[in-house]
Amino acid sequence: MISAGSGSLKTNKKLQCSLIVELPHYLCRKFLNHMSLLVVGSMAFDAIETPFGKVDKIVGGSGVYLAWSASNFCNDIKQVSIVGGDFPQQELDSLSARGVDMEGVEIVKDGKSFFWSGRYHLDMNTRDTLVTDLNVLAQFNPTLPDSYRDCDIVMLGNLVPAVQISVLKQMRKRPKLVVMDTMNFWMEVAMDDLKEVLTMVDVLMVNDSEARQLSGEHSLVKAALKIQAMGPKYLIIKKGEHGALLFHGKNVFFAPALPLEDVFDPTGAGDTFAGGFVGHLARTQDISFENMKTGIIVGSALASFCVEKFGPNRLQELTKEEIDGRINEFVELVNFDIINVS
Amino acid sequence: MISAGSGSLKTNKKLQCSLIVELPHYLCRKFLNHMSLLVVGSMAFDAIETPFGKVDKIVGGSGVYLAWSASNFCNDIKQVSIVGGDFPQQELDSLSARGVDMEGVEIVKDGKSFFWSGRYHLDMNTRDTLVTDLNVLAQFNPTLPDSYRDCDIVMLGNLVPAVQISVLKQMRKRPKLVVMDTMNFWMEVAMDDLKEVLTMVDVLMVNDSEARQLSGEHSLVKAALKIQAMGPKYLIIKKGEHGALLFHGKNVFFAPALPLEDVFDPTGAGDTFAGGFVGHLARTQDISFENMKTGIIVGSALASFCVEKFGPNRLQELTKEEIDGRINEFVELVNFDIINVS
Repeated sequence: MISAGSGSLKTNKKLQCSLIVELPHYLCRKFLNHMSLLVVGSMAFDAIETPFGKVDKIVGGSGVYLAWSASNFCNDIKQVSIVGGDFPQQELDSLSARGVDMEGVEIVKDGKSFFWSGRYHLDMNTRDTLVTDLNVLAQFNPTLPDSYRDCDIVMLGNLVPAVQISVLKQMRKRPKLVVMDTMNFWMEVAMDDLKEVLTMVDVLMVNDSEARQLSGEHSLVKAALKIQAMGPKYLIIKKGEHGALLFHGKNVFFAPALPLEDVFDPTGAGDTFAGGFVGHLARTQDISFENMKTGIIVGSALASFCVEKFGPNRLQELTKEEIDGRINEFVELVNFDIINVS
Repeated sequence: MISAGSGSLKTNKKLQCSLIVELPHYLCRKFLNHMSLLVVGSMAFDAIETPFGKVDKIVGGSGVYLAWSASNFCNDIKQVSIVGGDFPQQELDSLSARGVDMEGVEIVKDGKSFFWSGRYHLDMNTRDTLVTDLNVLAQFNPTLPDSYRDCDIVMLGNLVPAVQISVLKQMRKRPKLVVMDTMNFWMEVAMDDLKEVLTMVDVLMVNDSEARQLSGEHSLVKAALKIQAMGPKYLIIKKGEHGALLFHGKNVFFAPALPLEDVFDPTGAGDTFAGGFVGHLARTQDISFENMKTGIIVGSALASFCVEKFGPNRLQELTKEEIDGRINEFVELVNFDIINVS
């Protein structure tokens, strides 16, 4: 076992694709075993304005970021979403080519895809939502294809809790792991449904202010205990540029965010983090607390790429070497020697 | 070398005091070599109000926290400060008993000690200053005792930059390491002096908003490069509950803060962090970047004790076992396995 900080990292690390380097990294794992992954999330258009520039129409949505991110690690991904006839077929095809099954993506030919528009403030930590056009997302009530109902891991992107519940109820058996993202909005308008879905999931992902709102506790340690009592036995609290915490019982793990020179566009960073997390768990077929720690580092590394360009663009061009290099930066970032402490 | 995350931590760790456990831990190192440490800072009275309670008069000041914290690790500390006739002799004696030389502490018999009063907000991250009575601190213009002028490490607590410069100019030779704390107030009223002292120091400690103010850069990575160009080759950015960053050239190290169930009183946490940092460097006689990383973990551990009680009370009762246990919590907090990453 190699742990964070081991000086022998680079030489001992397993490079599973080393004999077939001519293949793209997401293909070279095609024949490896991994857990199947069901992903539920929006597929949309975004208009984004940051201090660095703007785009009027770019592909986005939690499901898009989740799938692009997870497909770096596994190629048995079942996508559940809804798009309008305006959604580019090429975008669906690009994901299919990465091993993302599109049978569960409903295409409403005469409808328009979900549209979100936002403007980031100078500090890039806060943003104003300018437009939210639900469009076809307003009628999202997915029926899972039969082949989806045995998936090992279910990743519920941030959506109306009633849809999250419906998806879980359609599974043939209890998945090995259910991971769920949500947001403060649902705490305000659908708390009863949210509480119900919380009883059905294993891992909840929220940011720090959402954890405080959900629990009524300012201390994140106390908030984590209260939220675990609501259902999820694992809680990931995302703190943006300040990293992420994983709580499980009284255990806690902290992963830093990489200090970045520039954050170009934070849109989708949270979903990208989630996609890397579940992608890693699926690939390694290991849903232990110890492996979740590694999954959080993987997710953080993917998120650090996501913010380098507008939309999911940076995620679509990543190489295995880039991912490995970024993960090594995380190892170096927290590596310290304790032989001489006291 | 044992690194953060090694499973063999507990069995391999060097316990230097294991044969003389009947002695207090700060005495059992009496005969070990270490670097001498000069500490400059205020010794004062504080009145503190937090959501958990209040105290009308408790010993405080940066010099008090620095000395209590550092004296857990070395007993050749030269204190430079000024107090009024009202400062309790017993407080000075307690520090003397820990190896803190009080010759450099001026006692103005008919003067009053510096007094600060503050009230913390509910989130404990922000506070209002209610009273600042400089009293004898207004006339602080220290003359270093001769025996102080060869110290290896100088720790300049947060003070008017002109005093920091004066202390450094009185050293017989350039110390091996100069560490400096400062705050936004001096950037506003004494920027020229502050810039001068920056050219004379090796390590600067500021919080994130101060780093941004000093550099004019929002990105902490860019801020760190600009500040290093002003003089200090090492920059520690304290982020409170979000941990601390150490920059040196293009290298960066991140240390988390321990997630705490309750923060009782944050007063002095920054000075306690600094005291643990320099105390560790002095004890180990190692001022390398690698050892500074460990120093930051040690400082973070001490700071996590500081906030558990009002004032410096918790620092005055710490055992070696408690410190070791807390440092192990930091190791566990960031420990992850990377064998299976990608």
